[in-house]
Amino acid sequence: MNHQKTHLWFQEYHTPHTGLFFRVEKTLYCGKSDYQEIVVLESTEFGRVLLLDGLVMLTERDEFIYHEMLVHPALSLLTHPDRVLIIGGGDGGALREVLKHPVRQVDLVDIDGEVIRVSQEFFPWAKSAFSDPRTSVFVEDGVSFVAGQKPKTYQAILVDSTDPVGPAKALFEKSFFEAIRSILAPDGILTLQSESWFYHLNILKRTYTALKGLFTHVRPYWAPTPTYPGGSWCFLFASDAYNPEKSPCRSNFQSRYFNPRIQRAAFVLPEFLKKALGV
Amino acid sequence: MNHQKTHLWFQEYHTPHTGLFFRVEKTLYCGKSDYQEIVVLESTEFGRVLLLDGLVMLTERDEFIYHEMLVHPALSLLTHPDRVLIIGGGDGGALREVLKHPVRQVDLVDIDGEVIRVSQEFFPWAKSAFSDPRTSVFVEDGVSFVAGQKPKTYQAILVDSTDPVGPAKALFEKSFFEAIRSILAPDGILTLQSESWFYHLNILKRTYTALKGLFTHVRPYWAPTPTYPGGSWCFLFASDAYNPEKSPCRSNFQSRYFNPRIQRAAFVLPEFLKKALGV
Repeated sequence: MNHQKTHLWFQEYHTPHTGLFFRVEKTLYCGKSDYQEIVVLESTEFGRVLLLDGLVMLTERDEFIYHEMLVHPALSLLTHPDRVLIIGGGDGGALREVLKHPVRQVDLVDIDGEVIRVSQEFFPWAKSAFSDPRTSVFVEDGVSFVAGQKPKTYQAILVDSTDPVGPAKALFEKSFFEAIRSILAPDGILTLQSESWFYHLNILKRTYTALKGLFTHVRPYWAPTPTYPGGSWCFLFASDAYNPEKSPCRSNFQSRYFNPRIQRAAFVLPEFLKKALGV
Repeated sequence: MNHQKTHLWFQEYHTPHTGLFFRVEKTLYCGKSDYQEIVVLESTEFGRVLLLDGLVMLTERDEFIYHEMLVHPALSLLTHPDRVLIIGGGDGGALREVLKHPVRQVDLVDIDGEVIRVSQEFFPWAKSAFSDPRTSVFVEDGVSFVAGQKPKTYQAILVDSTDPVGPAKALFEKSFFEAIRSILAPDGILTLQSESWFYHLNILKRTYTALKGLFTHVRPYWAPTPTYPGGSWCFLFASDAYNPEKSPCRSNFQSRYFNPRIQRAAFVLPEFLKKALGV
């Protein structure tokens, strides 16, 4: 569809009562994997858009912010991030950012191999990130993959999951965080996406509380995400060794959103969020 | 309209190709002033919503962020903000925040008295803010009001304008900033809303450049605004006396978004924004 007078529009409901709409030039891909519906749209405003089960996973226009901010607040603190694990992230955006760091090996485990295949077809960064010699891909459930790893294997673990419904539900459970902790090096760092403070504050609170019982330093942080619900997104940082507001960070890599002052500012919480989380 | 099966929806186009939609319970007010169409909706998700010419000016759910962040980064630096001027802001949200500070007099000048009248009818904070004995209202064009004031009158001036089209266009011009500077005390502070970095970066750049030629310290800052285009909003801070990243700030007032650490963090710019503005 690319007619002058007939316009197609996509709508995503952020709640039953509100959401985002944008114009679609054409549908580049539409398929169904064993786990979810996978769609790639060419949008007029945001470039290519990846949808899973009808929800925006990324747009070419603003994905850099989410992916940089899932990765760099952890990786920039590590001088030698030898082995890194990404759980989810089949679109390759987080992988692209991890590969900017001096890593020796990156394992990416996504339950849905179709997301990886489709992303490589439509997003140039995914093709190069997945073909990097440092990358190993495991098409497997994240929970069973983590259970099968040796203790203290990874310097950093990044959870780039979909929302905690359907396939990703188990990736927000305390038992999963315990399993992650056991395969993380003692001086390792975990970060995970933890949804919108505007719409999903209860998920952030629950996940924060679960992690607080397990790690010495647990800190929420956030970044603007224009095409995600609420326009901002939360993340959680967890580590026994690193305090993200005090540890020195590297800046010897390219970025469009992240910089060392952003590393500090992202962890500063508005008053209502401090109250909600009891910090 | 409050039926179970028939739903009304409002749409705002943020560009010709994308926007926000939300469900409407009923239209509380719909009128036309000499300057614009004024509508108040009861929405399912965001509470009451004020629209001017079909664009969301505020929602009850998230207006506190925008209004606190227009006001407190300036006012929290001033120990004795004797006289404060708000240009625009007929909805009373910025006025409410200014009145939390030890001010002796607040002048509010809005070109459209109907916005002030309607806001007082539908938004409880506006009723109390406009009836505060420290408040003086001038229904007048901001440019002519500023031209008529004595030099060095105000300790703080806050420009809470609509977008730079229609009635508010002149409020983004360099000649207006020169006039503002002349009625600002030598140790005074100006802040203004300067649109979305995601959609209106050119407006931010132009306004920033205009102010840089006039004031010693000019700094962009930003805050999340879930129901505004792009989900984040920019502001500009300008002063000859105060550096907002170094001057000590008061926190002896109630706030839901602002706090002293937010005061610092809000001025930290992402890498792409530093590049775009040449800072």
